[in-house]
Amino acid sequence: MTFSAKQIAEILHGEIEGNAEITVSRFAKIEEGKPGAISFLSNPKYTNHIYNTQSSIILVNKTFTAEKPLPTTLTLIRVENSYAALADLLTVINNLKPRKSGIETPVHISPTATYDSKQIYIGAFSYIGDNVSIGNKVSLYPHTYIGDNVTIGDDTIIYSGVKIYSDSIIGRRCIIHSGAVIGSDGFGFATEDEIFKKIPQLGNVIIEDDVEIGANTTIDRSVMDSTIIRRGVKLDNLIQVAHNVEIGENTGIAAQVGISGSTKIGSNCLIGGQAGLSGHINIGNNVHIGAQAGIMSNVEGGKTILGSPAMDAKGFFRSSIIFTKLPEMYKQLGQLQKRKEKGQ
Amino acid sequence: MTFSAKQIAEILHGEIEGNAEITVSRFAKIEEGKPGAISFLSNPKYTNHIYNTQSSIILVNKTFTAEKPLPTTLTLIRVENSYAALADLLTVINNLKPRKSGIETPVHISPTATYDSKQIYIGAFSYIGDNVSIGNKVSLYPHTYIGDNVTIGDDTIIYSGVKIYSDSIIGRRCIIHSGAVIGSDGFGFATEDEIFKKIPQLGNVIIEDDVEIGANTTIDRSVMDSTIIRRGVKLDNLIQVAHNVEIGENTGIAAQVGISGSTKIGSNCLIGGQAGLSGHINIGNNVHIGAQAGIMSNVEGGKTILGSPAMDAKGFFRSSIIFTKLPEMYKQLGQLQKRKEKGQ
Amino acid sequence: MTFSAKQIAEILHGEIEGNAEITVSRFAKIEEGKPGAISFLSNPKYTNHIYNTQSSIILVNKTFTAEKPLPTTLTLIRVENSYAALADLLTVINNLKPRKSGIETPVHISPTATYDSKQIYIGAFSYIGDNVSIGNKVSLYPHTYIGDNVTIGDDTIIYSGVKIYSDSIIGRRCIIHSGAVIGSDGFGFATEDEIFKKIPQLGNVIIEDDVEIGANTTIDRSVMDSTIIRRGVKLDNLIQVAHNVEIGENTGIAAQVGISGSTKIGSNCLIGGQAGLSGHINIGNNVHIGAQAGIMSNVEGGKTILGSPAMDAKGFFRSSIIFTKLPEMYKQLGQLQKRKEKGQ
Repeated sequence: MTFSAKQIAEILHGEIEGNAEITVSRFAKIEEGKPGAISFLSNPKYTNHIYNTQSSIILVNKTFTAEKPLPTTLTLIRVENSYAALADLLTVINNLKPRKSGIETPVHISPTATYDSKQIYIGAFSYIGDNVSIGNKVSLYPHTYIGDNVTIGDDTIIYSGVKIYSDSIIGRRCIIHSGAVIGSDGFGFATEDEIFKKIPQLGNVIIEDDVEIGANTTIDRSVMDSTIIRRGVKLDNLIQVAHNVEIGENTGIAAQVGISGSTKIGSNCLIGGQAGLSGHINIGNNVHIGAQAGIMSNVEGGKTILGSPAMDAKGFFRSSIIFTKLPEMYKQLGQLQKRKEKGQ
Repeated sequence: MTFSAKQIAEILHGEIEGNAEITVSRFAKIEEGKPGAISFLSNPKYTNHIYNTQSSIILVNKTFTAEKPLPTTLTLIRVENSYAALADLLTVINNLKPRKSGIETPVHISPTATYDSKQIYIGAFSYIGDNVSIGNKVSLYPHTYIGDNVTIGDDTIIYSGVKIYSDSIIGRRCIIHSGAVIGSDGFGFATEDEIFKKIPQLGNVIIEDDVEIGANTTIDRSVMDSTIIRRGVKLDNLIQVAHNVEIGENTGIAAQVGISGSTKIGSNCLIGGQAGLSGHINIGNNVHIGAQAGIMSNVEGGKTILGSPAMDAKGFFRSSIIFTKLPEMYKQLGQLQKRKEKGQ
Repeated sequence: MTFSAKQIAEILHGEIEGNAEITVSRFAKIEEGKPGAISFLSNPKYTNHIYNTQSSIILVNKTFTAEKPLPTTLTLIRVENSYAALADLLTVINNLKPRKSGIETPVHISPTATYDSKQIYIGAFSYIGDNVSIGNKVSLYPHTYIGDNVTIGDDTIIYSGVKIYSDSIIGRRCIIHSGAVIGSDGFGFATEDEIFKKIPQLGNVIIEDDVEIGANTTIDRSVMDSTIIRRGVKLDNLIQVAHNVEIGENTGIAAQVGISGSTKIGSNCLIGGQAGLSGHINIGNNVHIGAQAGIMSNVEGGKTILGSPAMDAKGFFRSSIIFTKLPEMYKQLGQLQKRKEKGQ
């Protein structure tokens, strides 16, 4: 696919500075730019690369001001938000790809399942249980398992090998990646005489609209009501969401985070990779939790926290610097203590 | 399903306080109680909710004493252990659900596999290898893979997409959730001239009776003998069990824990989420390991440890509080040191 | 299978000390040795077991010197590197096992896929997409999903339930374990008005030759170019490799490590379990990263680091010891401070 600067500027509502007729046929990172490629500049860390990039077109923010001469071979397209514009451009290209459709063979579809066969893609070896209801333009890649009574909203894409247990509700425009497991039993046991006694998990999982779920992420069903992932949440790979958890709208969670049972997370939070949250706690809205943090109690909205146990992020960094000096401090303190004991 | 207080009290061997004829048809959390619902009170943190719950029935411990008037609409059922009683009640209800049975099509079953087709459930697209032996009343959900020479005990449930490599032995009444992998190669390499040389993993995995294994958990086969999960162990989701590990009876392990090769864990231990254990160490019986702890050496039975590297849990909390004061301590110490140098 | 000491010594180019005719038919750990078994001694920690082992044969390094009398029933075979010799011996035995071959039914193979049906194993319920190219002697176990345009090199083994998204390139002699996901979308979003906007991930994943990938490990496709795993890399289970990451040759990574987007790791590195690496950083060659470490910035080649945030490993251990003494230090410092304030 080849696009001219003019075409791209039209798609992105951008302003051209340079040659409107120049064409590109591929993407490249700004630091690895090549003639015929389009790059973007968003992270200021990479600004210096624009002065000697070989890319033919670069998307920049409207606010960008060149502090040195730009390559004469370069055409700029100025947009409001270059990273969002990149998303738009990639989406246009992605939408040019043919969409899979039809029902491959063999598949196992319960006679009580409902779907519109004209608009659906069901890959081979998919399994669709009793009373399943599937919306329009849904894609189920090969080897998906859809348990009894599951509902899937319009335009949702479920990749190969996703397992959705019975009674789960999946919204519209969701994307669920391979190996994700939705609705497995919560980890609930009563202890009697040192033996674990299973508490059957009779609830379900509700995934609202516009949620993306990463590869091999697991979301457990609730004991008696619902584990809930609200609209617009984005979950990366290998995340654990325990039973009865609720995650608020537009919260983004990085890979390998673990969220224990009955914890509630607010909206618009960001949680870094490998963080862990205890059970039965509440996290407010707009909370930022750093990577590898360990959260053991409630967190008020708007906070930025880090460390295990977690604390204010700035305080954590300050204490971590002093942590490296502890052996020296210990020695100094010991000497002062000795001096004191000698009465000096 | 509707039950009266009388019926429930009979099932649970409980004592009724209130209206024995009142009926309930659903569960609710005590704090979200509704007329016609049954709730339970176990965690003392939630006790205050009992005084204004709208639930019709609440399961309480025999030892519960009301400190304020209870709602007049409320019937109590007193039992020995309300959480265990909940488990019993949920189990009764769960057992009312029809059990899947029969062999769906298509499946791939080796002619040398043995099983009793009258009592089994084998979901579509399941694969059963050579010389596999399957017990009575086993459920294999769709897309399960059972490698050659595997043995599966009676009443075990294996959910969709579980992969069991050859030679594994699975006990009775086990539950294995979707995406779990049993018997993959241990991570063993000899290094020669900076190149990793694979050590073939010729052992197997043994899972004893009454074990539950969470979604996407991985248990590697041993180099030459067996990785062993003892009777009654409960593993949550996304746990890594390396080769040659042994986990003792009735030990419970939360999500995302990692256990390195050849480590032995005692019985009745509890391990919190995301904890990591080094290889070739021994953990005694009744050890409690906190979430995110890092265990680098042997731990005696009965200890409660936390932190990375792990230490006594109380000491860890005390040191963690001081950790937040380190910048202030550093400043104070610097001033004292200066004063000393001036000879004051 | 029974081997004599003479046969084993020939296979391993070793020297016999003892009875060349003695035979063994099984492996045993040196501490659990039994007559008729072969064991090995590599880790010096286990040396004392050689003086009373019941094993019939033990592989030892050439440099081994007995400091006490050895059992008279014992035959030694001396080799350059006993652990590597064990690998060789296990490989010989492993290669005696019959290899799966042929194409089971049912499978779904696109008519545009290319492969040599005489030398391949394709397990039942495998799915092979359009324009897939498969090398010689490849094994695809049941339930594998090979997306469109994927290339797989000769002699690669892909276990049951692996999911490989479109456009991925897999090298020769690779081993990919069950549940691994290759080529899922990177976690990329632009934020507009607090809503996440998906950035389509149009790149791919390249896995070079001789790579092993553990069970349930996830490797995301790149935004526009490639996520790259270089020759000889070994990845354990449940590892997260984000988009645009590059891992250098012969680097070994333990279970549950997380590597964030665009990070580059050098060759011959070793990374301990549950470590986490931030995005957009560079790790040099021959770096050793300890278990649970958190790496937030570039690391020069040759370093050994530990802790979160990571620091020099020796310094980390020293500071960790002092960490346990913090409450005591805090008290001492408070007393000194009080004394100072009193002007003493």
